[in-house]
Amino acid sequence: MEAANAERFGAIYLRATLRGQGHHDVSDLPLRIQAFRRGTMNPNPAIRRLAGRAAIEGYDGDNGPGELCSDFILARALALAQDHGVGLCTVSNSNHFLAAAPYVEQAAERGCLGIVLSRSKPVMGMPGCGERLIGNGPLGFAAPTEAGYPVLLDICVAYASFGTLGALAEAGARVPATWGGDSQGVATTDPSVITDGGVSYPIGEHKGFGLGLLVEILTGALAGGPVADGIHPANPDGSGVHSQTAIVIQPDALMPAHAFRAKVTELIDRVSVRAPAVRIPGRSSFDTRERAVRDDAIWLPREVVGELDALAVGLGVEPMCV
Amino acid sequence: MEAANAERFGAIYLRATLRGQGHHDVSDLPLRIQAFRRGTMNPNPAIRRLAGRAAIEGYDGDNGPGELCSDFILARALALAQDHGVGLCTVSNSNHFLAAAPYVEQAAERGCLGIVLSRSKPVMGMPGCGERLIGNGPLGFAAPTEAGYPVLLDICVAYASFGTLGALAEAGARVPATWGGDSQGVATTDPSVITDGGVSYPIGEHKGFGLGLLVEILTGALAGGPVADGIHPANPDGSGVHSQTAIVIQPDALMPAHAFRAKVTELIDRVSVRAPAVRIPGRSSFDTRERAVRDDAIWLPREVVGELDALAVGLGVEPMCV
Repeated sequence: MEAANAERFGAIYLRATLRGQGHHDVSDLPLRIQAFRRGTMNPNPAIRRLAGRAAIEGYDGDNGPGELCSDFILARALALAQDHGVGLCTVSNSNHFLAAAPYVEQAAERGCLGIVLSRSKPVMGMPGCGERLIGNGPLGFAAPTEAGYPVLLDICVAYASFGTLGALAEAGARVPATWGGDSQGVATTDPSVITDGGVSYPIGEHKGFGLGLLVEILTGALAGGPVADGIHPANPDGSGVHSQTAIVIQPDALMPAHAFRAKVTELIDRVSVRAPAVRIPGRSSFDTRERAVRDDAIWLPREVVGELDALAVGLGVEPMCV
Repeated sequence: MEAANAERFGAIYLRATLRGQGHHDVSDLPLRIQAFRRGTMNPNPAIRRLAGRAAIEGYDGDNGPGELCSDFILARALALAQDHGVGLCTVSNSNHFLAAAPYVEQAAERGCLGIVLSRSKPVMGMPGCGERLIGNGPLGFAAPTEAGYPVLLDICVAYASFGTLGALAEAGARVPATWGGDSQGVATTDPSVITDGGVSYPIGEHKGFGLGLLVEILTGALAGGPVADGIHPANPDGSGVHSQTAIVIQPDALMPAHAFRAKVTELIDRVSVRAPAVRIPGRSSFDTRERAVRDDAIWLPREVVGELDALAVGLGVEPMCV
């Protein structure tokens, strides 16, 4: 990977890992390196403009990492929003983007409202049906506040992502029967049944399914990439099926920048004063990041460190632990 | 109400009622007429531009009906999307918009992807907390297809709207304990406990709550109107607390119009071929409309017809039944 790409790629992993979520962070790095080695993902994509008009642009991601493709379209949408008040940018022929947070938080840092959505491979269906029909609609947003941290949501529209389900399965936990089922359409409380050939169910059944369709339309359809279980014509190996879309709104096109921050702050204050126990999305992950920066230390599971160090030794770079 | 406003207002109610949902349709009309008579809603608003830049515009709705305000911003966002590829328009000092469908379907009819969001009064909280913290995030989208009907979703991000809960309560039905609770934060299966001073819960708990915050930010905060339990400074009676936002994307800025339709059609076909029983949002309500147009008849409950006819007689216009 060329130095400039590696720097951006690393910055995304740092942002993701500093949030302390325990998944969709540096622990996914070995998977990417594996894909680069196999040649199923292009570490140095030539991201190419396909079309556009004023506030909207579409790109081909050249089967690059979703991290580089999404970082690119967020930057473009930010630039478009400066000129047009709102900017929307799509990328097809991309791959897994890790999570929405590393991109949307950059928009909030610039005083903007950022929304980033991604396709995922089909993992979500509907209760009573055993088919994985569509992606689970990974999406996130971030908005600036005066509270020191952005409001930041980073979710999928299934009750749980496969990452979360896998962690729960490993811990031997059970899940509510609303969360998913087996390949025959029978609901289960065993998360491993869902991940091993089963189906995750959308939040609020038809509501989450409809939101999942919206994400497929805003990403795959609008980017001109695959939808549902379609594959990318340029990649018969099944790679490059992800598309991402970034929408950035520049509030200072409508009001002074401080007025928008004040409104968002008022919203979270009005919630918190009446319900101190209700968590404002983005707050605890921001606190985790602040703590890591202060302590100059990120906490990682021993196995993740071991795996990364083994990779480092193989690549001839300095390992974290001697 | 002036003739031009009445025509637009009536067209929205016709669109809503033709969908056959049985709520948020012409049965809400008596409430609006009551508000006009009390002077708590302005039937002839002077909708006024507050600010804007290129693809984004913000308006004050002059405490007008949400139907006129939302119809206005949808039309503006459509016009902006023609020029800029994407258009975003907000309106504050508005009122209840009925539903998202009557607006987003106009975008789909023009070949565009339309998204309309509204604030609602605070009706949604979180499990374990008895406070109504934020609106339930009414939102909808529509996208054109080659299937004869648009994909169209029209939801709130609580498990059920107060309209649905009221209908279930009237029918003596119970609801899942995940749907809401009483004012002490205790979950209930009695829908009337939720509507009578209780709290509705968001789909997927923190996920739906976060989406509800996004709707508050995209509408109330971005429009410069009230958020959460705030009131509008111009209306001490508590009216005009709604804001709406319309986002329209013109896909022909990225690809030929037919290519976008084909992609959306491919998505629903890929779902339907593998899961014929899964309902595609927008299909059955479109079929209902087609049937009503063919039969030249809309089915309404007898009580609704009676109430509307009593109003008609009082207003000196022709009743539906003699």
